[in-house]
Amino acid sequence: MPSWLEVLDRRARLRAKAGLSRRLRPRDATEDLLDLAGNDYLGLSRHPEVTAAAAEALTGYGLGATGSRLVRGSTEPHHALEATLAQWLGAGRALVFSSGYLANLGAVRALVQPRTLLVSDAHNHASLIDGCRLSGAETVVTPHLDVAAVEAALAGAPGRPAVVVTESVFSVDGDLAPLAELHAVARRHGALLLVDDAHALGVLGPDGAGAVAAAGLGGASDVVVTATLSKALGGAGGVVAGPAELARHLIDTGRTFIYDTALPPAVAAGVLAATRLARTGAGLRAELAERAAAVTRRLGAAGLEVSTPTAGVVSVTAPGPETAVAWAADCRDRGVAVGCFRPPSTPDSRSRLRLTINVGLDRRDFDRALDVIVECAP
Amino acid sequence: MPSWLEVLDRRARLRAKAGLSRRLRPRDATEDLLDLAGNDYLGLSRHPEVTAAAAEALTGYGLGATGSRLVRGSTEPHHALEATLAQWLGAGRALVFSSGYLANLGAVRALVQPRTLLVSDAHNHASLIDGCRLSGAETVVTPHLDVAAVEAALAGAPGRPAVVVTESVFSVDGDLAPLAELHAVARRHGALLLVDDAHALGVLGPDGAGAVAAAGLGGASDVVVTATLSKALGGAGGVVAGPAELARHLIDTGRTFIYDTALPPAVAAGVLAATRLARTGAGLRAELAERAAAVTRRLGAAGLEVSTPTAGVVSVTAPGPETAVAWAADCRDRGVAVGCFRPPSTPDSRSRLRLTINVGLDRRDFDRALDVIVECAP
Repeated sequence: MPSWLEVLDRRARLRAKAGLSRRLRPRDATEDLLDLAGNDYLGLSRHPEVTAAAAEALTGYGLGATGSRLVRGSTEPHHALEATLAQWLGAGRALVFSSGYLANLGAVRALVQPRTLLVSDAHNHASLIDGCRLSGAETVVTPHLDVAAVEAALAGAPGRPAVVVTESVFSVDGDLAPLAELHAVARRHGALLLVDDAHALGVLGPDGAGAVAAAGLGGASDVVVTATLSKALGGAGGVVAGPAELARHLIDTGRTFIYDTALPPAVAAGVLAATRLARTGAGLRAELAERAAAVTRRLGAAGLEVSTPTAGVVSVTAPGPETAVAWAADCRDRGVAVGCFRPPSTPDSRSRLRLTINVGLDRRDFDRALDVIVECAP
Repeated sequence: MPSWLEVLDRRARLRAKAGLSRRLRPRDATEDLLDLAGNDYLGLSRHPEVTAAAAEALTGYGLGATGSRLVRGSTEPHHALEATLAQWLGAGRALVFSSGYLANLGAVRALVQPRTLLVSDAHNHASLIDGCRLSGAETVVTPHLDVAAVEAALAGAPGRPAVVVTESVFSVDGDLAPLAELHAVARRHGALLLVDDAHALGVLGPDGAGAVAAAGLGGASDVVVTATLSKALGGAGGVVAGPAELARHLIDTGRTFIYDTALPPAVAAGVLAATRLARTGAGLRAELAERAAAVTRRLGAAGLEVSTPTAGVVSVTAPGPETAVAWAADCRDRGVAVGCFRPPSTPDSRSRLRLTINVGLDRRDFDRALDVIVECAP
C-alpha cells in the first residue's frame, strides 16, 4: 500500500497534467490590479464608514469574539446587525453565522425532519450540497433552473415534508433562479423554499433587499433566506433569515451556530455600517447594472461567448482549463484581476473567466479593464 | 400534517420543559463581567499589539477579503500567518480557513481515501463529527480516551487506510488525550493521527506550540494538526497544519477552503501579531497554569466536583440542566461570567459549569470570581 503522501502526490500530478493545479497568490495592500474578480460589488469593503465602524468596535471589544454565540460571543454589534438584517429582508428573525458556508450547513439541517425530501438545483453552491449531505435526508438533484423537474420531484413524494433548495443568482454564471415559479410549485406541494441569496443581497430588489424580496417573497412563512455578509456587504460571515421559530430552533440545536466561535465584533459592526449604506445605495445599484450590461456589450461585440448578467456576475466561456488560466494570467500581467473558474469549481465541465462588477472601481479604469480582457482573449 | 412552524414550536416547548432552551445575551463594550467563560486564554484579544496590527490591515485592505482564497482573498497577512504557524507547529505547511469548524471539515475529508476507516473519540467536537459524516467514510466511535479501543478498531480493519481523530484538550471537560500513545498505536497500524489542538495551541507545549508539539509529534509525517485562531490567539479562523502535500491537496480540492470567503485580512494580521506574543509568552502560560490549579484547589476545598485541568478549561459538575442555568445566572448577577454546558453541548448527559482561565483578568478579580462561584453553588 503506498503511503498517504504518495497517494496525495500522485493525485496532484494527475491534476497538474489536466491543467487543474491551483496556486495562492497573495496580494499586498499596495497592489493596484483593477478588480473584476472579487465580490465587493458595491465597493463597500473599503468605504470609510465601514472601516471606521469596524475600527471603533475593534477598540471597544478587541479582536476576537472570545467564544461561541451562546457563551461570550454575542455582542451588541451582532444583535444590531441581526435586527437590521431581519427588518431589511422582511424576516421574523435573522441569525448571523461566522461564514456563509456554515449558515448554509445550518439552514439545510434545520429544515430537515424525518422523511424530508430535499430537491436541490444541480448548480447549487458547495455549501448547500454539503448541507444536504450532512442532513442525511434523501436528496434529488434537479437539472439547473428546471421548475418542471422540481415539480415532478415534489409530486413523486406526496405526504412527505420537502424543501426546494436553490441559489438566487448563481455564483459561477450569474444567472437567476425563477424564484416566484419555484415558490408557487413548492407551496402547491406544501414544501419549503430555501434560497441562498448571497450574490443578490445588496444588489437586487427593493432597497437592495435581494432577489427573494424582488420576487415578492420576503417574509413568506414558507421561505428561508441565507446569504453571505462578505460580498455586497464587504465583510465576512453569513446569515439565516426566516420565521422566528426557525431562529429559535437554530439557537437551541444548530451545530454550526452553537459550536463555532462568533464572528469578530468588529466585522459585525463593519457589516452593519455596510448594510445601512447598501439599503440606501440605489445609485450604486444603478451603476452596477449599467456596468454589467456594458460587459456583455463590449465582450459580445468582440465575438466572445458572454452571459447576460442578472446581477454583478458575468461569465465568459474559455476553450479549456489551461487556456482559461493563460487568459487570466495575461490579464493579470496587464493589470486586471479576473476570476478563472475550472472544474471542480464549475457546475459543468466548462472553464470560464468570471467577471464581477465592483462599483468602487473608477469608471474609466473599468472600461480599460474590459479592453484588456478582449485584447488578451485566446 | 402539522406545518413546519408548528413542528418547530412543539420541539421548542419540549426543550423548554427539559430546561434546554438557550438565549443569546449580547454584551456591550462597557460590560464589566469577570470573564471565566470565554476562550481568550492569554488575554490577547485585547492586547494593544494585536488590535493595532488589525487596525493597520483594516486601513490597508478594507474590511472583507472580497473573495475566496483562490480568487481575491489571499493577502500578505494570510501568507505571513500561514508561514509563521507552520514554523511554530513544525509542519511542512499550514493553511488558514475562515473558521475552525471549516478547517476540521476540510481536514477530515482530505484524509479520507476509498475504504478509509475513521476512528473517532466519543467526546470529539461537533466539527470533527460533522467532518466524519461529510466524508462518507465508515466511522467507528471509540470510548473517550480509550487507547485500547482505538487499537482494536484499527486491528479490525487490516490493510485499510485509517485515521485516528481526536481533540488534544477536550473542549468541555478540559482533559487531555494520550497523544503519544495514540500516535504509537496509529503508527503501528499504518494509520494517520488527526488532532484538533484548538484548546492547547498557545497554552501547552514548547513556546506554546500546542499539545501535539508537547508530545514530541510536531512535524511527524503521519500527524495532521487543526486548530482555531479564536482561542489563545484571540482572533477568528482556523488552521490545518501538516505535510506540504496535504496543503496542496486542500488548495486544489478542499471544498471548505475553496468555496468560502477568506478570513478578513485584518483578522489574519491581528492573529499574526498574537502568534508572535504567544510564542514568547512563557510567563503568560505559567500564570495560566497556576490559576488553573487554583480553581481546582479553591472549588475542591468547597466540596464541589471539579476536574483537574490540563490547560485552561475546568469543568464543575452541576446537579442538572436547570440548576446549572440558575448557578450560572447567579454568578452573572454577581458580576462573574461562567460557561454553562447542558445537553446537547455536553458529550454525556451531565450538565456542568465550564470555567476558563483568562490571564488578561486581574489576579484579585480572578480570585474574587472564584469566591462568587463557590458562594452561588447550589
